[in-house]
Amino acid sequence: MDVTSGIGVPQETLDAEIKSFFESAPPLKNRDHICEKLKEFIDRNLLPSGNGNARRVVCVTSGGTTVPLERRCVRHIDNFSSGHRGAASTEHFIKAGYAVIFLHRRRTYQPYCRSLPEDPLLECFEVTDESNIQVRQSDSEALTRAITEHHAAVAENLLLKLPFNTIFEYLQMLQMIAISMTSLGAQAMFYLAAAVSDFYVPWTSMAEHKIQSASGPLDIRLVQVPKMLSVLRKVWAPMAYCISFKLETDTKILLEKADMALKKYKMHMVVANELSTRKEEVVVVTSNEKISVCRDKTQVGTDVENPLIRLIVERHSAYIENPDL
Amino acid sequence: MDVTSGIGVPQETLDAEIKSFFESAPPLKNRDHICEKLKEFIDRNLLPSGNGNARRVVCVTSGGTTVPLERRCVRHIDNFSSGHRGAASTEHFIKAGYAVIFLHRRRTYQPYCRSLPEDPLLECFEVTDESNIQVRQSDSEALTRAITEHHAAVAENLLLKLPFNTIFEYLQMLQMIAISMTSLGAQAMFYLAAAVSDFYVPWTSMAEHKIQSASGPLDIRLVQVPKMLSVLRKVWAPMAYCISFKLETDTKILLEKADMALKKYKMHMVVANELSTRKEEVVVVTSNEKISVCRDKTQVGTDVENPLIRLIVERHSAYIENPDL
Repeated sequence: MDVTSGIGVPQETLDAEIKSFFESAPPLKNRDHICEKLKEFIDRNLLPSGNGNARRVVCVTSGGTTVPLERRCVRHIDNFSSGHRGAASTEHFIKAGYAVIFLHRRRTYQPYCRSLPEDPLLECFEVTDESNIQVRQSDSEALTRAITEHHAAVAENLLLKLPFNTIFEYLQMLQMIAISMTSLGAQAMFYLAAAVSDFYVPWTSMAEHKIQSASGPLDIRLVQVPKMLSVLRKVWAPMAYCISFKLETDTKILLEKADMALKKYKMHMVVANELSTRKEEVVVVTSNEKISVCRDKTQVGTDVENPLIRLIVERHSAYIENPDL
Repeated sequence: MDVTSGIGVPQETLDAEIKSFFESAPPLKNRDHICEKLKEFIDRNLLPSGNGNARRVVCVTSGGTTVPLERRCVRHIDNFSSGHRGAASTEHFIKAGYAVIFLHRRRTYQPYCRSLPEDPLLECFEVTDESNIQVRQSDSEALTRAITEHHAAVAENLLLKLPFNTIFEYLQMLQMIAISMTSLGAQAMFYLAAAVSDFYVPWTSMAEHKIQSASGPLDIRLVQVPKMLSVLRKVWAPMAYCISFKLETDTKILLEKADMALKKYKMHMVVANELSTRKEEVVVVTSNEKISVCRDKTQVGTDVENPLIRLIVERHSAYIENPDL
């Protein structure tokens, strides 16, 4: 009998840690509203599409989570992630016919807006003498494309954007999404590209007020965030196709850690990437393969997400045909 | 003889800490470019303006600084600050005839854009049938105002925007700005609204790679960032009018801490604000006054920065008349 969770921690300990994480987390402020939006989005995509089947739906997570150090939050620990991977992948999934729930950190890269300047409003527009706003000629094409494609995706019910900041918000929303996607069975996918905090300060042991900078150093003790990936796979979304990401700065340990994650959390696929080359190349790790996926350098303006999503869609199709393989 | 820095730490210790901070900081990547832009901006504003004097120049700092926990940065500690105060104050300073160096955290609030939706590009625009981009009627006025006023400020050389992320970038840029503003004498002002980290991990003792989440808790030891306010006042910009901010979540200790900061760092003014009421009321603390400044609730769309900047401009005028008072 399997009495461990597969990650070296007894199942009861993990269950207790997860229970304690959720019980002590500050409740989501707009839970009912999110629930409603999710239900509507899934219901519409459950209706038979062109090929007579429900549409495939992928939850793409994107950007880093924060860990508050104080309840009335002034300071927090943040995981760096621009959200570029998640935003790019969302575009490619939609192009491939998927509906996407884009669970993203506020103010990170948004789908269709990746190639625009940091502050497009002030950099791309000008006001004419007649007080009309007009787009500068040089930016016109990129802007028209961004606005058109974004509006089309939303109008066709192919894109639902849900923002988060903290690890507490992220994990509560991920759970809600997973449960709402149950009805999709194997048509559902999780593409977990967000940079999720490994450590946090439990809400119950958190300082109420701003930590004072008295003399001397500051020592902070952080505890591990319970590994939710195994719960996602086993309990929240047992039928969904699950892909997680492994980012390291040290190439030497990257593939080994990706392999470990695959087995530990029973993922269907782990995408391994190294910080400095992540926009050029990733390695797709499955139970019996390691496939290097590279950006097509012969073409201008292509992403590594282009061949990556193509490969993933193939594997997801095979999984839908035979989920038990 | 004054052998302490006025903050309970011997002057030699402080000097050594500051020297060590700057020596160990990763060098600014675009130092020469920033230097050039600063010189050009100051030079243009040194030319006599309408009243025959050089223009007053204020350096407004805005947003929070980050503290990397790893050299190839994946995780960092962040100080929360939306940058709303700095962005609003910049607008009011420009209206009052100042030129503003807006030293701001990337992706925080920008002057003239505060009242726009979070993602104005996707929320305010639509594409017509003829593939023209047009502004939705309801957002037209706010957008036209934002773009017009921003372009006017930049064109008239009244706004220079310089972005930062880390505490290392922030303090090196603040030093450069202060030194470049020396020629302005008492016409120069520092309005230090940024939320600067109190603690950091020295670059020399920082992990090279991503910290691994092995079993067990993570303990982080942070050391205090040397108090640069006293160096700014004494060495970098001894003639400038200096205003710092004190933010607390606990009202009981707020005024006391503001008073301490005024004396310790020899500020001309400290603006005390409490996290939950900071958009409605602040208390201006000087050596002989405590003035409560409130937003004018009888008028729609006004900020607390409106009366605040009015008061500051008055005090700066008096200071220019007689810097020794």
